[in-house]
Amino acid sequence: MTEDAPFFDPAFAAQLESLLHWRRDVRHFDRRAVPEADMDDLLRCACLAPSVGNSQPWRFVRLRSAAIRTMLASHIDDESAKASLRYAEQEQRDHYRSLKLHGVREAPELMAVFCDGHPSAGHGLGIATMPEMLRYSTVLAIHNLWLAARVRGIGVGWVSILDPQAVTTMLDVPAHWSLIALLCIGYPAELSATPELEQRGWQAREPWADRLFER
Amino acid sequence: MTEDAPFFDPAFAAQLESLLHWRRDVRHFDRRAVPEADMDDLLRCACLAPSVGNSQPWRFVRLRSAAIRTMLASHIDDESAKASLRYAEQEQRDHYRSLKLHGVREAPELMAVFCDGHPSAGHGLGIATMPEMLRYSTVLAIHNLWLAARVRGIGVGWVSILDPQAVTTMLDVPAHWSLIALLCIGYPAELSATPELEQRGWQAREPWADRLFER
Repeated sequence: MTEDAPFFDPAFAAQLESLLHWRRDVRHFDRRAVPEADMDDLLRCACLAPSVGNSQPWRFVRLRSAAIRTMLASHIDDESAKASLRYAEQEQRDHYRSLKLHGVREAPELMAVFCDGHPSAGHGLGIATMPEMLRYSTVLAIHNLWLAARVRGIGVGWVSILDPQAVTTMLDVPAHWSLIALLCIGYPAELSATPELEQRGWQAREPWADRLFER
Repeated sequence: MTEDAPFFDPAFAAQLESLLHWRRDVRHFDRRAVPEADMDDLLRCACLAPSVGNSQPWRFVRLRSAAIRTMLASHIDDESAKASLRYAEQEQRDHYRSLKLHGVREAPELMAVFCDGHPSAGHGLGIATMPEMLRYSTVLAIHNLWLAARVRGIGVGWVSILDPQAVTTMLDVPAHWSLIALLCIGYPAELSATPELEQRGWQAREPWADRLFER
């Protein structure tokens, strides 16, 4: 059966591409609170993501504790300082250190996203040979959230400069959950079609045709 | 600087949510070819995805060889038969076997998506403690492709019932690439807002609020 499906016209396709262009990884937030209704919208859209076996393995943990926020920010700064030592050249190390890599202290909302490695839903379909599909499904949900945020003028920053095991312990979640992302959510200080790392000369976008091969 | 950014209105937000609702994992394709211009659009949109350190680690391999397609389809059927043995109860095993889990033989386009584990772009930013961020970035690109496809009426099916190492060998790609997805791309035989696994009684969607926790 084909249900009464919506038709998406070329104007909408163009607007979607514009949304993809203008979605940024945000590290500079203003302090305005995100309305509760918008937070609900973001999570509802996140959970429309595809998942292997329809297992819906994503687990969103909204962080409200100021103490946890402080701990997380210190942990990330420590990990970032350690990571800077991987750059042997002083110039690149200084460049790395000059980048603002997260807004954990300022973002009005912090969301830790976990993957349940043993979800009750899905009955194991599709993960016999690729158990990582559960984690990939969780990433898809994060991307839905990200786009649903941007369309509302809300920015998201994905922080990965952290020890996922340390953060999992900090947040006291079930042992079979693994951390996929720590998200900073709030209104961005500025809007741009250019990634911040490109603006700051770290790494520019490369032509998409360079990513295409054939067999 | 805030550039001349587009404004996304509530009508567009609603349409985006409708797109998320109507994006399906497609296993039934008709045979109409996908226009080349659309294939370009899909890849261009895919490469607008966020990536850790702006490393753009995604590598798309468009499969044109009929021999490779046949090999892949057999491999997946074998793996699926093996996976069915994981269901101890006969009823569930029969249910699993009754599901159509891929359209590798019929889909007009097959795309293997790899992650380059040592991309020249990005200079290692953000992967000191979470090297898996490269793979997650590749998943984000796949999701962009998926949405860009659906908005054009084109369906995508993500096949994970395969041995990623075997497929990597089959496709003769660099050793530091790892397989993230095999995608079937083409026009879907039907449109639905309900996941096929839900239609067939395997696994329904669960309320999003069940996926939300607080700390």
